[in-house]
Amino acid sequence: MDVFEAIRERRSIRKYTDEPVSDEVVRELLGAAMMAPTAGNAQAWQFVVIRDRAMLESVQSFSPYAGMAAQAPLGILICGDTALEKYPGYWVQDCAAAMQNLLLAVHAKGLGAVWTGVHPKPEREAGFRKLCALPDNVMPLGFAVIGHPAQERQSEDRFNPQRVHLDVYGKTLA
Amino acid sequence: MDVFEAIRERRSIRKYTDEPVSDEVVRELLGAAMMAPTAGNAQAWQFVVIRDRAMLESVQSFSPYAGMAAQAPLGILICGDTALEKYPGYWVQDCAAAMQNLLLAVHAKGLGAVWTGVHPKPEREAGFRKLCALPDNVMPLGFAVIGHPAQERQSEDRFNPQRVHLDVYGKTLA
Repeated sequence: MDVFEAIRERRSIRKYTDEPVSDEVVRELLGAAMMAPTAGNAQAWQFVVIRDRAMLESVQSFSPYAGMAAQAPLGILICGDTALEKYPGYWVQDCAAAMQNLLLAVHAKGLGAVWTGVHPKPEREAGFRKLCALPDNVMPLGFAVIGHPAQERQSEDRFNPQRVHLDVYGKTLA
Repeated sequence: MDVFEAIRERRSIRKYTDEPVSDEVVRELLGAAMMAPTAGNAQAWQFVVIRDRAMLESVQSFSPYAGMAAQAPLGILICGDTALEKYPGYWVQDCAAAMQNLLLAVHAKGLGAVWTGVHPKPEREAGFRKLCALPDNVMPLGFAVIGHPAQERQSEDRFNPQRVHLDVYGKTLA
C-alpha cells in the first residue's frame, strides 16, 4: 500500500471480527514500530503483546476507553525503558513515533487498530504495570488494540491551513 | 512508495543540496502530518514552516544538534497547542505521531529530513519560542530539518526480539 494512502486512510478501528492475527504478522507490525527514530538512536523501548483473554478483558477496569480490548484478538502495549535512554526525557516521543509506524503497518496489512492512551494517566499506568508485571524502569505509553476490522470508516481530510505559520507565529504561508 | 518500504528505508538525513522545496510539497508534508491520530481527535497542534535564512542559521545558537538547519532550505517546527487540547497531557504524543507521518512523507517524496529534539529541553523550547514568537499556549515539540538529500544512508533492521514480551514482562513470544 502506498504510504500516502496509508497515512490518509488509516482511522481508529474499535470493532473486530473473531479472526485471529498470527505471531508472524505481529512480528511484522513490531518490526515496523521498531524502525521509528529515537533520541540518540537508543531504541529505549519495550513491547508487550497481550493475547491472554482474561488480561484483555481486565484492561477496561483501569482504562475506560479501552473496553474494545475484551473483543480483540490482541493488544500491543508500547513502553519506554528509562534504563536504556541515552538522552533522558524523550521516551514519550520515541514510543509515540513507534506507535504511529505500528498503526500504519496495521492498516497496510488490512487490519484495524485504535491507540488507547495510557501515559500520563496514573491509574492506567499503574493498571498496566500490575497487569504485565512491568519493572519500575518500564513506562507504559500507549496500548494499541488490534484485530481484523468489523467496521468501515471513511477517510477525513484533516489539513487545516490555519494551523500553518511561516517563520513567525501568525504569519500565513503564501 | 510502499508504506513498509518507507518505514524500513527512512533514515535521518543531515546534508542537503541547494535545490529548493516548493510550498506545494510543504503542504503535502503538512497534510500527512495532520492525518496523525490525536487524543479526542482534538488536533491540538500548530506548525511553523521556517524558510528565513537568518532564522535557520540562528537555530544552532540554542539547539546544538540542529546546526544542519543553516544549510537546509527549510525546517518545520511541530508544536502542541494546549489551548486546543480536549484531554490535557497528550500533546507530546500527538505531535510525535504527526512528526513520524511527516518524516515518512518526506522520504516518500524523495526528500530527506532529521527530527531534532526540542521538548523537554528548556533552552531549546525558549529559543524557538523567541525565534518564532510563539504564544504561551504553543509548545514546541520537535524541529524537522528538511531538504533534498546530499547523502545516502543504508537501511538498518532494528527489530529486536529481546524487546518483545508476551502477556507478562519477560515472557518470550513463541
